[in-house]
Amino acid sequence: MRFLQVDTLEDARQKLLDEAKAWLPATELLPLPQAAGRILAQDVYAANNSPHFRRSTVDGYAVIAKDVQGAGESIPSFLTVVGAVEMGKGADFAITSGQCAEIPTGGMLPQGADAVVMVEFCETFGDDEVAVYKAAAHGDHIIQIGDDMRAGALLLPKGKRLTPQDIGALAVAGAKNVSVFALPKIAFISTGDELIVPHYNPLEDGKIRESNTLSLAALAARHGYDVVQTLSVPDDQYTIKQAIKQAMEICDIVAVSGGSSQGKKDMTADIIQMVATPGVFTHGIAIKPGKPTILGHDETSRTLLVGLPGHPISAMTVFELLFGWLPPNLTGAAENFPIPAKLTTNVPGSDGKTTCCQCKLIFEDGAYTAHPIFSKSGLIATLVEASGYFLIDRGTEGLHKGDNVLVYLY
Amino acid sequence: MRFLQVDTLEDARQKLLDEAKAWLPATELLPLPQAAGRILAQDVYAANNSPHFRRSTVDGYAVIAKDVQGAGESIPSFLTVVGAVEMGKGADFAITSGQCAEIPTGGMLPQGADAVVMVEFCETFGDDEVAVYKAAAHGDHIIQIGDDMRAGALLLPKGKRLTPQDIGALAVAGAKNVSVFALPKIAFISTGDELIVPHYNPLEDGKIRESNTLSLAALAARHGYDVVQTLSVPDDQYTIKQAIKQAMEICDIVAVSGGSSQGKKDMTADIIQMVATPGVFTHGIAIKPGKPTILGHDETSRTLLVGLPGHPISAMTVFELLFGWLPPNLTGAAENFPIPAKLTTNVPGSDGKTTCCQCKLIFEDGAYTAHPIFSKSGLIATLVEASGYFLIDRGTEGLHKGDNVLVYLY
Repeated sequence: MRFLQVDTLEDARQKLLDEAKAWLPATELLPLPQAAGRILAQDVYAANNSPHFRRSTVDGYAVIAKDVQGAGESIPSFLTVVGAVEMGKGADFAITSGQCAEIPTGGMLPQGADAVVMVEFCETFGDDEVAVYKAAAHGDHIIQIGDDMRAGALLLPKGKRLTPQDIGALAVAGAKNVSVFALPKIAFISTGDELIVPHYNPLEDGKIRESNTLSLAALAARHGYDVVQTLSVPDDQYTIKQAIKQAMEICDIVAVSGGSSQGKKDMTADIIQMVATPGVFTHGIAIKPGKPTILGHDETSRTLLVGLPGHPISAMTVFELLFGWLPPNLTGAAENFPIPAKLTTNVPGSDGKTTCCQCKLIFEDGAYTAHPIFSKSGLIATLVEASGYFLIDRGTEGLHKGDNVLVYLY
Repeated sequence: MRFLQVDTLEDARQKLLDEAKAWLPATELLPLPQAAGRILAQDVYAANNSPHFRRSTVDGYAVIAKDVQGAGESIPSFLTVVGAVEMGKGADFAITSGQCAEIPTGGMLPQGADAVVMVEFCETFGDDEVAVYKAAAHGDHIIQIGDDMRAGALLLPKGKRLTPQDIGALAVAGAKNVSVFALPKIAFISTGDELIVPHYNPLEDGKIRESNTLSLAALAARHGYDVVQTLSVPDDQYTIKQAIKQAMEICDIVAVSGGSSQGKKDMTADIIQMVATPGVFTHGIAIKPGKPTILGHDETSRTLLVGLPGHPISAMTVFELLFGWLPPNLTGAAENFPIPAKLTTNVPGSDGKTTCCQCKLIFEDGAYTAHPIFSKSGLIATLVEASGYFLIDRGTEGLHKGDNVLVYLY
């Protein structure tokens, strides 16, 4: 085993990204209705102009602008109605000087017409004559061909997280299936002789309810992972090894949350070293909480292996800072928008470590304040108050009341 | 039919909320792994203390603090080791003065012990003696019973949107299933003779690719609706009526996006009046875009009916402002955190209407700037640039470059 010195958060992220880039992420074709929220794996170009015909934006009469030049309330222009455009149909006739055609909103302009006059300014006479009481300029009330999008033009770039309006735009652009990055498959294995399934009763002495696989799975799903397995196993090297090996066969990432004892942590590193080649590439990260973190990889099965601390807050923090950070950096998607906020109290840093501080956001007087939540890493109940977290750089002694922080939301 | 005057956005929201409260939302019991992101329908109390036994936070020796009073590097206290606590097991022995017990991190303190000394400060002699080189205070390195949560105490309040850490906390609290608000069932029906399915080719003259059901469905899913049906039908009163009636049987909300012609809009209102009793309660809302919006309800089937404008941006805006607003206000959940940003250009308001302005957010120098996106409501491609939107009050002439706005994210 290579014993490495503790990595900074930046170094660990970069190593993780480099390894992940070698195998991840795969892409998949999805029909539009399933692609919302997913990240485009290739540039998308419009397959057609939109609109692909000149559309009227009002109900009225398609005219030749020159014919109604100077028309007004007291001096109407009289035109002959030579047809009526039907919604959803081609306009299979043309108009020439002195002629016009009835047209609905969204209807196709007949050849020859170059403006539309709203019906409110027109008056019909007999079957085929209309008085137009308003002048129109060339192009009035018309959406020209390609005004929305041009055939062959870039509509959405690779790496775009698809919003609801993107899905609509893709439909208009004639897309059927889109290529998006596949969700990395992940398994969570929680280890510990003390763990029992959450709702098991009675709660015997020495036992605790296993919660890491549940909170980590929810966190992973939020960050765009496909959680394919969650498992709780006792502190037995053979059992843990078998569980990891099985998960490696079906997953891109296997995350093991250990107990909190020093001996046990070493066991996870040893096991990763046994099942994976080349194995561990990071052992210890300068973050607080979460220092005892292990990162490894196996080239044969193309799996990333992670040893997370066992304490709930530490495990979630490490997962968030590494694997919440990974997907946008792997796919080129924009990260979520962190929220600027003013600190309400002093917060100490941690010598040489990046500190992750949970906080509650409160909106007052048009701005946010961040109220730090201090808690022991073995506890979880205090975390239910947290809106998100901010980071304190490892070079910093701490932050002061009134300082600005950037809060990442849960 | 009751012809009503145009509602303000606030009035329309309040009416919608009042109607929705009469029938929505139902609740459902979900197992923890499925409850992340959902909204609690009742307060949750801890079923047990956590921890329910005194836990050590370090590897070391459980001692009686008094016994190691004054101990230091040069004057160790000598104690007799009377047992070793095993992980996940009860400590079925007690210690008395002069005695101690080996204990792992997370292990249960034996009766009598009131502190733990870290293994680093202890040295064993023979089989059953240990020299302790450090004093300990009562309670050192111990998580007391109920430190994380107390049995019977409120853990999470009704209306809380469940974060990943909430799911973990619920597990620790012994919850098995949780009662959450059910996702309101919604159907989208797009009407228009000009509509063809998105990827249909060739694109004939006069036709446009239907996109509203796709973008609206994605938007609805994001806001916690269960989209059970999307449908595109021609402009035929009988067909539309049948489609709405069928959807009413299986949905809580039926949203019809119409074409853009005046005649057609009236048709939607007329049809809602035919199929629903008491029918339309709002016809026209003072928002831009989106004025021609219809809200109605049917008491027998307990369905809300909505007529949305046909233009993509208008339809999405109306849905967002009404039905994106509804769920948190119906369930008591906190709304998402809007982001304060500085406007980069002047934006005109709209006389008497609340204006919804799409914008792109850019983060620079520790703060956000909002870059308004101006586009015709019939187009959709410009919207792919939008990070979110802000509102301009109907009392306002407009906003100025440098003004602060609150941006709601897509």
